[in-house]
Amino acid sequence: MGLLDEIREQPAVIDRTIARNGEPARRVAELSAGCTHAVIAGRGTSDNAGRYAQYVWGSRNGLSVGLTTPSLFSVYDRPPRLDGALVVGISQSGESPDIVSVLEEGRAQRRPTVAITNEPESPLADFADVVIDIEAGEERAVAATKTYTAQLTVIALISEAMAGEGDVLHRLPGWVTSALEQEQKTEERTHGLSEIEHCAVLGRGFNQSTAFEWALKLQELTHVIAQPFSTADFLHGPVAVVEPGYPVLAVTALGPAADDVVDVLRRCAEAGASLTVIGNDTRLQDVATSYLAFGPDVDEWLSPIPAIVIAQLLSYHLTLAKGLDPDAPRGLRKITRTT
Amino acid sequence: MGLLDEIREQPAVIDRTIARNGEPARRVAELSAGCTHAVIAGRGTSDNAGRYAQYVWGSRNGLSVGLTTPSLFSVYDRPPRLDGALVVGISQSGESPDIVSVLEEGRAQRRPTVAITNEPESPLADFADVVIDIEAGEERAVAATKTYTAQLTVIALISEAMAGEGDVLHRLPGWVTSALEQEQKTEERTHGLSEIEHCAVLGRGFNQSTAFEWALKLQELTHVIAQPFSTADFLHGPVAVVEPGYPVLAVTALGPAADDVVDVLRRCAEAGASLTVIGNDTRLQDVATSYLAFGPDVDEWLSPIPAIVIAQLLSYHLTLAKGLDPDAPRGLRKITRTT
Repeated sequence: MGLLDEIREQPAVIDRTIARNGEPARRVAELSAGCTHAVIAGRGTSDNAGRYAQYVWGSRNGLSVGLTTPSLFSVYDRPPRLDGALVVGISQSGESPDIVSVLEEGRAQRRPTVAITNEPESPLADFADVVIDIEAGEERAVAATKTYTAQLTVIALISEAMAGEGDVLHRLPGWVTSALEQEQKTEERTHGLSEIEHCAVLGRGFNQSTAFEWALKLQELTHVIAQPFSTADFLHGPVAVVEPGYPVLAVTALGPAADDVVDVLRRCAEAGASLTVIGNDTRLQDVATSYLAFGPDVDEWLSPIPAIVIAQLLSYHLTLAKGLDPDAPRGLRKITRTT
Repeated sequence: MGLLDEIREQPAVIDRTIARNGEPARRVAELSAGCTHAVIAGRGTSDNAGRYAQYVWGSRNGLSVGLTTPSLFSVYDRPPRLDGALVVGISQSGESPDIVSVLEEGRAQRRPTVAITNEPESPLADFADVVIDIEAGEERAVAATKTYTAQLTVIALISEAMAGEGDVLHRLPGWVTSALEQEQKTEERTHGLSEIEHCAVLGRGFNQSTAFEWALKLQELTHVIAQPFSTADFLHGPVAVVEPGYPVLAVTALGPAADDVVDVLRRCAEAGASLTVIGNDTRLQDVATSYLAFGPDVDEWLSPIPAIVIAQLLSYHLTLAKGLDPDAPRGLRKITRTT
């Protein structure tokens, strides 16, 4: 089992995650009903899952979500008051001490606590009122793929439980299967990207999380200096770095944020950027140097799941194109323990 | 008046900001007493000021602070519930519609609202119960410098008001004057950096905000692809990009986070990175290729103010070393209106 196997395993993982987590998702929804807001702690890939929850729970369920600063709970030992908060820790391994310290403090302040993890026997789970096992199975590759989409699926399940709905998620495994069919096209695109050393990765709204996670995969696997931005933040300064040939990667989906993303990408194209776009907005077919599509029927709020699968495939093939080993990234260990 | 003048003006600006804002800071402290948490909206430089508030109000005042996602309030028009929240908008111009929409929604939900701005007659101020004029005077340079340190000073003033204290801030202008004395050393350092095209910028805790703002100045002025990280997040993946000669910039201050930062920087040095450090932790004098110091007596929680001044000077001189015009950055306007 290598990275590519784990990428391809995702339709089955998502199917299993949905099938097994209806009940704990409903318990989280019940806990959230008594809270004014949610506080989420995560690092790396899990922080990107938290970013997704900000948009999903905020827009669909009216729940205000803040991403906390774990060091206040750990190295500084000066945790803020968590009055009114649902306290959520996201960690694949459930072991990073700084994330554990946030749930420990939530419990000490008698707030409801939730662990979203692939290790239900972990220290993180010990401090959680509800433990959601993302059911991804063992992830051997250092770069997280199936655990990320399983975390997003759990966040979507909780949103459906909070809304009292639940009939859309069964389409997810099919959408992800279709996304996997883009593999050959992602491989072809890497021929044009194999020499890049840096790039910007753009997204907005729900897919800001995808931009951040795509950039992280590129950093981990290809050593490309990939910098993620909300398209709005990009206009507040960083747009200055775009020059002819500068590689810009972007993710977008049909929805209220689409016009804004199209405008920014047209501006990048006018400045001569080389544009790689993952999306289902056909206006970008002519603007992009390379356009990698997921289905037109994919709901915007769920699009980060098929979108990141295409981004994972592109990152995997770019790693090979650069002559690197996707199963042995330099300088990384599977479990990172930060305090 | 150009960028360098505005950088040098900062001790006087900070002195004025402190002298004139005691009363509105106390009003914000009173409003915060009835809130469970704070929600801050800002973009670009102002978002970095919000990041500073997360640490300062969280650790010194126990106030949990979340940085909100403005697009939920603007493009998506699906604002979350703000129950219990102090709603704060930070914007130099007070004009960006997405930031204004957050305060407008705060008022519609009958929550206390605060505007921190250099334009007290702006649309942002119209929706604020308390308007804090940062009193920075007109900022002509596109790259924000004095408005950023004035925003941080206001956040520190509010923290002092919440704590019922107020005798440390008078030392700030002197610390910033000392920081300005590092100018020649920053200019010398730029000789070793004039060819760089990308770099990582690291900080943790209070100075995570400094790392993000330093990276933004480099992007705006020098077109260097500067990517900011918390040192903890850096270990969760991006550390893989470090190779011999790779430029790493870092900010640190004596305090609980210092050991962690020193460990990460030693690891970068072992991997052959070229290290530029701004700090007052003398352990890093031997580790860093270049060490730019602020005073050993600077309190950690206030260190982001003198630290960013040194970073601004380095960014300014690197712009000149690259043959670019610091007063006319490519592709940027002073007021960015994002929706």
